Amino acid sequence: MASNSFGTIFRFTTWGESHGPAIGVVIDGCPPLISLTEDDIQPWMDKRRPGQSRFTTQRQESDKVKILSGTFEGMTTGAPISLLIENTDARSKDYAEIKDKFRPGHADYTYWVKYGIRDYRGGGRSSARETACRVAAGAIARKILGDKISVRGAVVQIGQHKIDRAHWSWDEIDNNPLFCPDPVAAKAWADYLDDVRKKGSSIGAVVEVVATGVPPGLGEPIYDKLDSDIARGLMTINAVKGVEIGDGFATAELAGEENTDEMRMGADGTPVFLSNHAGGILGGISSGQNIVARFAVKPTSSILHPRQTIDTLGHETDITTKGRHDPCVGIRAVPVGESMVACVLADHLLRLRTIRSS
Amino acid sequence: MASNSFGTIFRFTTWGESHGPAIGVVIDGCPPLISLTEDDIQPWMDKRRPGQSRFTTQRQESDKVKILSGTFEGMTTGAPISLLIENTDARSKDYAEIKDKFRPGHADYTYWVKYGIRDYRGGGRSSARETACRVAAGAIARKILGDKISVRGAVVQIGQHKIDRAHWSWDEIDNNPLFCPDPVAAKAWADYLDDVRKKGSSIGAVVEVVATGVPPGLGEPIYDKLDSDIARGLMTINAVKGVEIGDGFATAELAGEENTDEMRMGADGTPVFLSNHAGGILGGISSGQNIVARFAVKPTSSILHPRQTIDTLGHETDITTKGRHDPCVGIRAVPVGESMVACVLADHLLRLRTIRSS
Amino acid sequence: MASNSFGTIFRFTTWGESHGPAIGVVIDGCPPLISLTEDDIQPWMDKRRPGQSRFTTQRQESDKVKILSGTFEGMTTGAPISLLIENTDARSKDYAEIKDKFRPGHADYTYWVKYGIRDYRGGGRSSARETACRVAAGAIARKILGDKISVRGAVVQIGQHKIDRAHWSWDEIDNNPLFCPDPVAAKAWADYLDDVRKKGSSIGAVVEVVATGVPPGLGEPIYDKLDSDIARGLMTINAVKGVEIGDGFATAELAGEENTDEMRMGADGTPVFLSNHAGGILGGISSGQNIVARFAVKPTSSILHPRQTIDTLGHETDITTKGRHDPCVGIRAVPVGESMVACVLADHLLRLRTIRSS
Amino acid sequence: MASNSFGTIFRFTTWGESHGPAIGVVIDGCPPLISLTEDDIQPWMDKRRPGQSRFTTQRQESDKVKILSGTFEGMTTGAPISLLIENTDARSKDYAEIKDKFRPGHADYTYWVKYGIRDYRGGGRSSARETACRVAAGAIARKILGDKISVRGAVVQIGQHKIDRAHWSWDEIDNNPLFCPDPVAAKAWADYLDDVRKKGSSIGAVVEVVATGVPPGLGEPIYDKLDSDIARGLMTINAVKGVEIGDGFATAELAGEENTDEMRMGADGTPVFLSNHAGGILGGISSGQNIVARFAVKPTSSILHPRQTIDTLGHETDITTKGRHDPCVGIRAVPVGESMVACVLADHLLRLRTIRSS
Repeated sequence: MASNSFGTIFRFTTWGESHGPAIGVVIDGCPPLISLTEDDIQPWMDKRRPGQSRFTTQRQESDKVKILSGTFEGMTTGAPISLLIENTDARSKDYAEIKDKFRPGHADYTYWVKYGIRDYRGGGRSSARETACRVAAGAIARKILGDKISVRGAVVQIGQHKIDRAHWSWDEIDNNPLFCPDPVAAKAWADYLDDVRKKGSSIGAVVEVVATGVPPGLGEPIYDKLDSDIARGLMTINAVKGVEIGDGFATAELAGEENTDEMRMGADGTPVFLSNHAGGILGGISSGQNIVARFAVKPTSSILHPRQTIDTLGHETDITTKGRHDPCVGIRAVPVGESMVACVLADHLLRLRTIRSS
Repeated sequence: MASNSFGTIFRFTTWGESHGPAIGVVIDGCPPLISLTEDDIQPWMDKRRPGQSRFTTQRQESDKVKILSGTFEGMTTGAPISLLIENTDARSKDYAEIKDKFRPGHADYTYWVKYGIRDYRGGGRSSARETACRVAAGAIARKILGDKISVRGAVVQIGQHKIDRAHWSWDEIDNNPLFCPDPVAAKAWADYLDDVRKKGSSIGAVVEVVATGVPPGLGEPIYDKLDSDIARGLMTINAVKGVEIGDGFATAELAGEENTDEMRMGADGTPVFLSNHAGGILGGISSGQNIVARFAVKPTSSILHPRQTIDTLGHETDITTKGRHDPCVGIRAVPVGESMVACVLADHLLRLRTIRSS
Repeated sequence: MASNSFGTIFRFTTWGESHGPAIGVVIDGCPPLISLTEDDIQPWMDKRRPGQSRFTTQRQESDKVKILSGTFEGMTTGAPISLLIENTDARSKDYAEIKDKFRPGHADYTYWVKYGIRDYRGGGRSSARETACRVAAGAIARKILGDKISVRGAVVQIGQHKIDRAHWSWDEIDNNPLFCPDPVAAKAWADYLDDVRKKGSSIGAVVEVVATGVPPGLGEPIYDKLDSDIARGLMTINAVKGVEIGDGFATAELAGEENTDEMRMGADGTPVFLSNHAGGILGGISSGQNIVARFAVKPTSSILHPRQTIDTLGHETDITTKGRHDPCVGIRAVPVGESMVACVLADHLLRLRTIRSS
Repeated sequence: MASNSFGTIFRFTTWGESHGPAIGVVIDGCPPLISLTEDDIQPWMDKRRPGQSRFTTQRQESDKVKILSGTFEGMTTGAPISLLIENTDARSKDYAEIKDKFRPGHADYTYWVKYGIRDYRGGGRSSARETACRVAAGAIARKILGDKISVRGAVVQIGQHKIDRAHWSWDEIDNNPLFCPDPVAAKAWADYLDDVRKKGSSIGAVVEVVATGVPPGLGEPIYDKLDSDIARGLMTINAVKGVEIGDGFATAELAGEENTDEMRMGADGTPVFLSNHAGGILGGISSGQNIVARFAVKPTSSILHPRQTIDTLGHETDITTKGRHDPCVGIRAVPVGESMVACVLADHLLRLRTIRSS
């Protein structure tokens, strides 16, 4: 069944395999009269692009986006926007060895069982390369959200190493290749990841995405809540195993009076909350506070340590994944997570309009 | 925009407010020729039903389900199944005091801001009473799943108190009013909750849902993955703030070689996994292992401690929520979480058929 | 697969069988703050209600609508609106004879082949009784459309007898039981239908629905065009075999210069069209002209003449449908057709908001 | 709102403008393990391709399809199939004159009113060029339908000239450039169309699509009926103004006993119908008979006769559409109509699987 689309009013559909000629995304439902050129999209692609530091895969992809439809003289027209990204550095031969073996932790076995056929080259459709399309869609979502709404992400934990939130600086994110908002942690993590990489191992991470400037009213009870759509969106990202909103799992340990976000009136006559345990969402609807979501990314399954597995004929065997891989795939998940949140917010911003008579 | 439906092939739509005449659910897409009477649904309703122990709200609802359509001579016909549950113990006067005040942590403020109108009686549409409809839908989903697939839930943490997994017994679940699988913890929790209740406070919890017997192949990349649909489904439940699959957030601290679920061939000639860090889902598709999902439920926002808030006119005020409430709403979330997982599995079981030629 | 819903933003879901305890509809996506009571819905139900003249079935149903959810103090809240209509005059024994026989022209055979089970009482789910739910949904759609948009229908042909369009008077519609806008034709048709009825026969009809006051811009290329959604909606009505927009099939015989709706500027400074061959829709988008749609309704399949058929065991047999039936089912299709058009327009009015920044 | 997709299980999304760099379609939900190469698609493209006779537009497009994703070693994988068709003969300068004028009968005015921006080159998104994508999707739908199901179309009327159904020969379709099944009519039509073309005029047409070998059971009551989905699909085709199933509008003139398709048992023990007034669909579900649908195509709006219109500034003016156009756009609508019916059938074939346990 069709399953490669995300969103309702603002809806994107991705296609393409890791080692095919290209990947792409069709964005449908973008309002007209928004200025849009490739220059609006490319910077976000570059954030996610592989091969930019020793902490990410050495696959070199320029990830140049081409707009094939949906704009006219630099403006969106309301027609679907087709974006194309060519694959230029696909080394399929790297994957010959794993043609018939299932890499543990990857989707090899489940795709094979489900579909009875599998494009094994680089993981085919299940490759994280697909996430480039999400970043492209997210760039357009940001145009809909406008300048008053920002969606930013950061790595807040790698392995057992968490940031010190007292050090948090959004500016710091761009100063290190780890999307780390804590300059002290950033240095420690770099050393730690070098070690992980040299050992041919990998490590998990936690990413936090914060949206500011989000007006109250976004999100639709009961089954299209803002938090459930964010949870769905983030959980579709490769290797993500958990999602939480606001204080998330920590609320299990809180008493009701500790978890309350009390309300007062602000100096400007609008309501203010005295805390934000809820992560900006109450009853599935944005409250006007910052939206805060976190997601856990498991360690890259492709490691240099031999693991036990089976092959397509049912024979037991071992596998060591050579290819070119990220020691901590959580790092490059930051721009992807941002994009998914941006797409959810843009969709709900447009949905909100449907209950307001103009 | 329409937002009160869940699922694609197997799709349910709920309606009704906490203090209206009734609530209900329409289940569309149930295959024909499945035996179904109210007796198949009522036992699951009774599990969730309030007023059964001192640990849940004292509202007394019989939650009797009536089938109004979609069956003929005890069998489903393929037509939509309409289920109706009357509200019998709605005490709207309990809510007169909060008519114009926003209860912190509840959806009062966000519904009011979004819709400009609010049925304040018992939370109206945002009440957890809506979850009775999900349990009814889940009972039908279970009929589709059949006897070989089980979906069971348990509370695994209340406040800081976690179960000892070495004590896990599914049979124990029915022996205590807390859905606790650990008999030792069950006793300790009862004392702890009595204390919470007496203090007029509340506490959060973590619930785990495990599905066994799930065949491989369920779930559809990229955006309708089994885990993303489960995450979405669980996150729509009132008060849920986090969802994780398998080892979830703990994978952030694992190395690749620790997180690998290695594969071997079983004695019966089918693949076996040597561990289940993945929670039974790889690349968004079930692997044949147990599906394991957990969700965090925040403490009930309705507590007897006065909290600062504002009213609809923007005046600052205080509020103490009297009503009848659960000291730990996570307990009654167990059958609801089970139902959401069952509905997701049923939907994907039917979706899987679409790629298999019969 | 779920298939009992219609619409996207404004979406309704119907349930119920002809001879079950009740039928109903859940309307999801209605904006808040619209005044709504049963009195807004009942008059439209009464238009469609059976048993009001000798030209419609003698089944007596009061078709009283109850609002079970979605309003508060007489206003919509944005929550789903559940409407219930009890079945009071179901005579199931009338159908015992046809329990195992397939009535030609009815859905008996196809339901049985598809589902392997069939509620034969009154056609079960396939009964035109389901259309009462559409009329209820249409009444709410009209509230969204507001007073400036009207949606009215008329019978323009019965058998070979067409109205004289020179006689068209909307006021005349309420003066005869045939929804005929031509007083001369109305009288002739009454005599003709008496004859059809006495012979135990039935006859087809053509219904025209006209919407006035529709703003330009409704309808979404490419696959959710206003005309394709109207065509879909009208074709879902029982017994409808054809739909056309504007000049419809007659355009096959027109030259380009005959079919052109030329444009000029009106006295009030807005564009005017010099004709309306297009029926108010160009490229799938409303032009501001009247929307004109017509649909053909086949003769009632239930007639007193014996017809050859088979039974569920594959035996050849004859059947004469006794029951209580409309000699011309096209008559009661008028309020149903109006409602479907109103629902499509309301949905697209709300959809239009999503491309307009407020 | 997203509106460029068609179908549910088998769902395609088109993108691209008449004079952009390319057009394309993403087919999502195609089952795996179907052999598919460009050679399976190209022959159907060639049927629709312009410039092949003097009766169609002289725009020369090779319409070569490239498969960019979704297949592996010549087989579908279950992943989305992205097809790309480059635009090679776009002469945008032909359209400079109409940049600010609304061509009557085209979507120029309505797109401009709705979106506030318009790619005027060749009609942009509203161009019939988009239908090439539907034919590509239809080719894949045919692969799902298999060899036992055929979907064929024919022009049955041009202007006032209808075919003689006694002459009907499917083989004849390929012998003339008009998709005419009647060799006598084909010759007469050619002369007639030469005359229309020389006069700079255009003419309407009626197209009939017949599907044979369709099993009973396709189509889902109430709102996703096979006939309503076909009606929707055909009505989305440019210039289509009417759709009918089986006897369609003619049933308005039939008595119940004339319209009955009586049933008997066939020699092979399966039910047979003695006629097919219903066009193979009863209650929205296929009966096993041939599916018969017809649609009316209005005359091409682009003609050499000057017509009155206005421009974007509200000035009154005249327009003569020069460009390269089809004198009878109904001719090239044949492969498009076939494709839409094939896509609806493929979708419902897959939907049917969801109620059958395998």
